[in-house]
Amino acid sequence: MKDCIFCKIIKKEIPSDIVFEDSKVIAFLDINPASKGHTLVMPKNHYELVSEMSDDDCKHLMVSIKRISDALMKLNQGLNIVQNNKKVANQLVPHVHFHLIPRNDKDGIKIGEWAHVKYKDNEASNIIKKIKEFIE
Amino acid sequence: MKDCIFCKIIKKEIPSDIVFEDSKVIAFLDINPASKGHTLVMPKNHYELVSEMSDDDCKHLMVSIKRISDALMKLNQGLNIVQNNKKVANQLVPHVHFHLIPRNDKDGIKIGEWAHVKYKDNEASNIIKKIKEFIE
Repeated sequence: MKDCIFCKIIKKEIPSDIVFEDSKVIAFLDINPASKGHTLVMPKNHYELVSEMSDDDCKHLMVSIKRISDALMKLNQGLNIVQNNKKVANQLVPHVHFHLIPRNDKDGIKIGEWAHVKYKDNEASNIIKKIKEFIE
Repeated sequence: MKDCIFCKIIKKEIPSDIVFEDSKVIAFLDINPASKGHTLVMPKNHYELVSEMSDDDCKHLMVSIKRISDALMKLNQGLNIVQNNKKVANQLVPHVHFHLIPRNDKDGIKIGEWAHVKYKDNEASNIIKKIKEFIE
């Protein structure tokens, strides 16, 4: 898509540190890494959100994420995978991308931790009902 | 796998608030949610890490994540997807699972934010070289 920085990287109009590439997927180092080796993996087709991807792109993307994760796990002790949808969830570039963030002992990174909320009576069952209604 | 709490949920030996289920995937509400509607999606086959999944389970899982994300996006303003590999990355249950965490304005949740590190000279290109060597 015009004006999408990741589409420009995919078209090689902007340089990037490419880790992996095939006909449907590209992976390159994040320019603002949470840790060294922090890699972005995304479909070459432009979608803003994970919920918008074609089934074919979903399938190809997850197999690629698995392969790159396997390499990163061989080089590090752990790995967080993070994907953000919409600005309210800290999505900075509106082209769907998965962050693969290497983790190691005492790295001081807080990814994968969060505070907990509690459901009131019947609230969980009402939420499940709504989610099920919307699953297509 | 014996003694895996998620395998017990999959076998219905332990109850859970199931959101979605088919022959290969199950999704249920996290009992310690970061936000209301926080859903775990996982393959029914037991793997500890994302890097260990079969290609077939990868494909089926991502299409399921897409479908459930679509429902959660219709009910919320945003969504974080998080998957943790190994204790050092905050994986609490060693059965691969993706957290789908609904986000809304002013929810005070910090998921998807992190501090940045910087590469020294040639460090990024050396890391890329290593990652490429390990991608199978």
